[in-house]
Amino acid sequence: MTLQVGVLGYRFMGKAHANAMARLPMFFPDAPDIERSVLVGRDEEALNEAADRLGFDSISTDWENVVDDVDVFYNLGPNHVHAEPSIAALEAGTPVFCEKPLAPTLEDAERMAETARDAGDDVPAGCAFNYRFVPAIQYAKGLLEAGELGEIRHVRGRYLQDWLVDPEAPWSWRNDEEMAGSGALGDLGAHTVDLLRFLVGDDDLAGDIERLSGHLQTFVDERPAEGGDETRPVTVDDAYSAQLEFENGAMGTLEATRNATGHKNDHTIEIHGSKGSLKFSLERLNELELLREGDRGYETILVTDEDDPYVDHWWPPGHVIGWEHTFVHENYEFLSAVDEGGEFHPSFEDGLAAQRVLAAIEDSDERGEWVSLE
Amino acid sequence: MTLQVGVLGYRFMGKAHANAMARLPMFFPDAPDIERSVLVGRDEEALNEAADRLGFDSISTDWENVVDDVDVFYNLGPNHVHAEPSIAALEAGTPVFCEKPLAPTLEDAERMAETARDAGDDVPAGCAFNYRFVPAIQYAKGLLEAGELGEIRHVRGRYLQDWLVDPEAPWSWRNDEEMAGSGALGDLGAHTVDLLRFLVGDDDLAGDIERLSGHLQTFVDERPAEGGDETRPVTVDDAYSAQLEFENGAMGTLEATRNATGHKNDHTIEIHGSKGSLKFSLERLNELELLREGDRGYETILVTDEDDPYVDHWWPPGHVIGWEHTFVHENYEFLSAVDEGGEFHPSFEDGLAAQRVLAAIEDSDERGEWVSLE
Amino acid sequence: MTLQVGVLGYRFMGKAHANAMARLPMFFPDAPDIERSVLVGRDEEALNEAADRLGFDSISTDWENVVDDVDVFYNLGPNHVHAEPSIAALEAGTPVFCEKPLAPTLEDAERMAETARDAGDDVPAGCAFNYRFVPAIQYAKGLLEAGELGEIRHVRGRYLQDWLVDPEAPWSWRNDEEMAGSGALGDLGAHTVDLLRFLVGDDDLAGDIERLSGHLQTFVDERPAEGGDETRPVTVDDAYSAQLEFENGAMGTLEATRNATGHKNDHTIEIHGSKGSLKFSLERLNELELLREGDRGYETILVTDEDDPYVDHWWPPGHVIGWEHTFVHENYEFLSAVDEGGEFHPSFEDGLAAQRVLAAIEDSDERGEWVSLE
Amino acid sequence: MTLQVGVLGYRFMGKAHANAMARLPMFFPDAPDIERSVLVGRDEEALNEAADRLGFDSISTDWENVVDDVDVFYNLGPNHVHAEPSIAALEAGTPVFCEKPLAPTLEDAERMAETARDAGDDVPAGCAFNYRFVPAIQYAKGLLEAGELGEIRHVRGRYLQDWLVDPEAPWSWRNDEEMAGSGALGDLGAHTVDLLRFLVGDDDLAGDIERLSGHLQTFVDERPAEGGDETRPVTVDDAYSAQLEFENGAMGTLEATRNATGHKNDHTIEIHGSKGSLKFSLERLNELELLREGDRGYETILVTDEDDPYVDHWWPPGHVIGWEHTFVHENYEFLSAVDEGGEFHPSFEDGLAAQRVLAAIEDSDERGEWVSLE
Repeated sequence: MTLQVGVLGYRFMGKAHANAMARLPMFFPDAPDIERSVLVGRDEEALNEAADRLGFDSISTDWENVVDDVDVFYNLGPNHVHAEPSIAALEAGTPVFCEKPLAPTLEDAERMAETARDAGDDVPAGCAFNYRFVPAIQYAKGLLEAGELGEIRHVRGRYLQDWLVDPEAPWSWRNDEEMAGSGALGDLGAHTVDLLRFLVGDDDLAGDIERLSGHLQTFVDERPAEGGDETRPVTVDDAYSAQLEFENGAMGTLEATRNATGHKNDHTIEIHGSKGSLKFSLERLNELELLREGDRGYETILVTDEDDPYVDHWWPPGHVIGWEHTFVHENYEFLSAVDEGGEFHPSFEDGLAAQRVLAAIEDSDERGEWVSLE
Repeated sequence: MTLQVGVLGYRFMGKAHANAMARLPMFFPDAPDIERSVLVGRDEEALNEAADRLGFDSISTDWENVVDDVDVFYNLGPNHVHAEPSIAALEAGTPVFCEKPLAPTLEDAERMAETARDAGDDVPAGCAFNYRFVPAIQYAKGLLEAGELGEIRHVRGRYLQDWLVDPEAPWSWRNDEEMAGSGALGDLGAHTVDLLRFLVGDDDLAGDIERLSGHLQTFVDERPAEGGDETRPVTVDDAYSAQLEFENGAMGTLEATRNATGHKNDHTIEIHGSKGSLKFSLERLNELELLREGDRGYETILVTDEDDPYVDHWWPPGHVIGWEHTFVHENYEFLSAVDEGGEFHPSFEDGLAAQRVLAAIEDSDERGEWVSLE
Repeated sequence: MTLQVGVLGYRFMGKAHANAMARLPMFFPDAPDIERSVLVGRDEEALNEAADRLGFDSISTDWENVVDDVDVFYNLGPNHVHAEPSIAALEAGTPVFCEKPLAPTLEDAERMAETARDAGDDVPAGCAFNYRFVPAIQYAKGLLEAGELGEIRHVRGRYLQDWLVDPEAPWSWRNDEEMAGSGALGDLGAHTVDLLRFLVGDDDLAGDIERLSGHLQTFVDERPAEGGDETRPVTVDDAYSAQLEFENGAMGTLEATRNATGHKNDHTIEIHGSKGSLKFSLERLNELELLREGDRGYETILVTDEDDPYVDHWWPPGHVIGWEHTFVHENYEFLSAVDEGGEFHPSFEDGLAAQRVLAAIEDSDERGEWVSLE
Repeated sequence: MTLQVGVLGYRFMGKAHANAMARLPMFFPDAPDIERSVLVGRDEEALNEAADRLGFDSISTDWENVVDDVDVFYNLGPNHVHAEPSIAALEAGTPVFCEKPLAPTLEDAERMAETARDAGDDVPAGCAFNYRFVPAIQYAKGLLEAGELGEIRHVRGRYLQDWLVDPEAPWSWRNDEEMAGSGALGDLGAHTVDLLRFLVGDDDLAGDIERLSGHLQTFVDERPAEGGDETRPVTVDDAYSAQLEFENGAMGTLEATRNATGHKNDHTIEIHGSKGSLKFSLERLNELELLREGDRGYETILVTDEDDPYVDHWWPPGHVIGWEHTFVHENYEFLSAVDEGGEFHPSFEDGLAAQRVLAAIEDSDERGEWVSLE
């Protein structure tokens, strides 16, 4: 059986997922057969051009007609259109793969997760935190699970970009609370929170985040509207930071910003356990820096060996892969789960859990005090 | 018009080029339309499986029937089958894209280049030195051409792998002189020589390599034949080194080995000019280390900005690409040249020039003295 | 005139300062002449041995007799003996150089600073934050002051050690609140706070720290007493973290720990301004990573050129210096200030200012909310 | 007994050794007592100033009177005055510590080594290759000796400086063959050759260098004489390179230059053995990059632990040392050998062995062919 896939969204994420789907047959021959069936959006002309380029059979400007017509629904639109179409699809029994953050508000995320729960286990609802699918991250996960780093004491996550350093950089939907929910926090921080949950969330590592203190900041309050003399207000954060306390007492510090001059897509994770430490940086995503018990320093490991996660599908050792490959891996896993009726993580529940952390950070910032995540 | 492409070879290189061709429509929409028409090899069963996976319409076990039937012929077989099919194709007026090194012997390379010359300018004959098409290398080339590093004084190239460190690693065609021509020298050194010719070969940089001293070494003389108790002799080098003198007096040192424990695919180029310096390493291929006039140290540049070579076709700044993307770029350039009747470099002439250097290194090693490249 | 110097403390810091003083004549010939006159401590035997090794003329077990007898008094004892001898010396008109943190409690620090104020400008009272005197830090300070990084938006400071990862590591005075004041916070965090005040404290950079949120954690509650079966309680923090907001809205995150497996003395500072960024790491103290306006990446600068701060006193470019050299520089500056009657920074006021930040971090941790530094 | 030390030379090396001697009592209390007795040179005024600053009791302009008057003679003058005073001292039974390279010519070096041989074992004759005494190098040596890297297959050494990139950089004795012997080859290459002999010269590692091919180059033929309009000819090399073959078949490539734009004192050693690899770089001399059997990448080791070579004499882990500390270590070892009548390496024999390699490189360059050693 060939799965008919409907995709809402045809820009950055649309291209990343379309490419991923297109590459499955050559590199993951055991992936289910799929058809890029229908591309959904509002602007018919742009949609036609994109469908042609991205290899879709047809277009639609009406997601409501699509969500129960296809075998799988991808929601890759801006954050404020995550909830309704995803919910409608799940209610129609259609598996959904939704981009992160799950929703612009905690309420939306809760509704979405609830619908997913109601839809049942054979209707996978995935939240597309692609960085879980970096081979180096999967390799790190294996080491952590095997206890090679011991009990976790410190985690550190930061996501640094610089595209808003210039006060004259134009306004976009990402600067608007209604459409984006939040700024660096939701866009970048969501990735960090999910990765840390994935890596150290097990009870014998650090467990859940128990309480936190958050801080949000907007450096530039208004920005020029595109193509005009006017400005529009920036209603989201340019940057956030947070301090975490995990169940086991481990400490965490988080940060993300669009004002780190010179950094483009610098997502860095650092973990110190009682036996070892590791560092990962997205701009060098083929590498893991690892310090095991007995080591004297960090080993810089190129995670491209044949027996590293996913690597045997690609190229020989040392022939590095890129950012987009994480999408191939997550599409492979998600579509296989759809096909085989298995579980998929990160799920909507994972998306909701991350959202709760983001919401707690905002809440803490407003109240000026630590808040608990019950 | 859709170009019918015939491809000889379906293993590592076959996969790399098939993938590249498959990705053109989505990422390089102005590339010519092509069809992966026929896949050529000897083992029909393996061929069928590969054609299916790599998206070819048909298979053939007889390259002679293919070379004048298609619009473009890719020769991706082992080195000892580079010459005849390529020559036949060119004689039939079919453009050829041949993997490197151009040929196992200088004589073959000369015949191939001669045939390419005879075929004329509108029949492109390309030699697939893909590392020219790394964005960081193209960016470096631009800086060098603009004189930003001044006159070149030193170049250094090394290509380190470790898959033959273990004396029990099995024998393969790559250990056989007749099939491979040479070992690390041709397989790895060819890349280094081509890159240096590309980067500093201009007269106002370093010019041509004028003379050199070479050294070859085989550490393990025989290796176990696959699936048996016997051993087979290793008749090629495990490693080579060379010292170069360029036209302008610049000095070079080259090295490649399959015995650099811990190094997988570490191809590093370093250049010192009178005004600046640069370093590039294939395992971090998104980066260039650059020191310009007035700088106090090397800048570690992530060559992923929108205006960096080829990058606008892919992803936003900081979203790194992988090794395979170099094949997409070279396929784009080669097929465009075929389509538009333009020139393509690296050509068979470039392949021959690299081969001359490799041959001189072997010659020098045998004679124990410096040799000139007329 | 030769300055008679009295020094309390003969262990780690005693050795570091004695070495610094011993090296002045050869490397800083314009430093004032000094005599290592008297070494002060409690254990006469150990004191005699140390005085002999460290080049002191005499010993004393009674600091009260020393502080007004010498021309300069160095207080290098544990934190809980910082206040009384320093105050007595200043009251006697004797310049004081006191190790950091200035005192175990804010109250002590306030008394010390007040006494220093009363003693007047010609009685320098210095707090020995030696990392201000790393050439790379002084160089960075110059760049920041010149506006090369623009207005500051983010600062990040972390100080990672691992000597308490092992729960069986023995108890010492550094684990005791009464003697040490605090743990990682005072011992390591004091350095970070001082460096950040020094680097970005100017009004046109980030200004003062306005408010903060702090977090302290003790991972191991009791430790084996040295040489016995008993354990003693750990009454200080093993680690702290903090979020900062500066006057101009800049954000900061701080951290220090003795539980960062694999890190020995890793003090790292990162700063992002509207025009540029920098990174400094103590374990590579000869280097500064700098990104200026127009740069595409961080330059790794070896701050060892003749015109770099203090470097002309030492060796040619590229001949790196070590940790101890920072003590030579600060001793040179402090003793010159004593000799010439000039001002010296970091002063007791600077020590107090850092202490206020540390106290606010503890206060915030206890209250679970942000606190303001008036 | 206090050893009376006479030192010829009071510039760069004079300062480095005087500092080393001055620091022994505080950090190496078991070193023999010494007195910086007499400083030897030609310019009385400069000599007086230097003796005062460097802590010498007296001066002399006549080395002949000094060499048998003192207990130890340090020859730190320019290369062309290495031979006669050293020989005279040894003939008088005075131990000699001579800067590298041992002599400007192979003949001189042979005479010096012969005299040392004649003087007997209780008259140590040391050649001051200080880089053997970097803790990271000593640590590496231990690992190599213990067989942790297996049999050696590749070594690589380069020493990069840039102070002659500018054609207008003034002429000095270092550009003159008569005074310096050679250029980058003797000044820098001597260090590399000695380090490699030290590290891999054992028979079960790589053994001796058996044959080599060398290349010398002078980029700028004349340079402005200091303080005048005239130029003077450059009669030494600006750069050299070499290819080596060791007894066991291991390959080596060497290089040094004063034209590597942006590099100040970049001496890098890389070694690949059948079981592991290592890298060392002088500008980060506290670090060793090490890949052992079973490792997946290089560990970046900070060689500053208590049980690392020499480190217990200095500071706690992570408190890095500098370039000058290598002189303290070598002075400690040499003076201890003098005091205890023990052997000292690197000896004049070691200096001669290095010189033979340098001479062979020059010889090979002239003849344009490989040359054998002995």
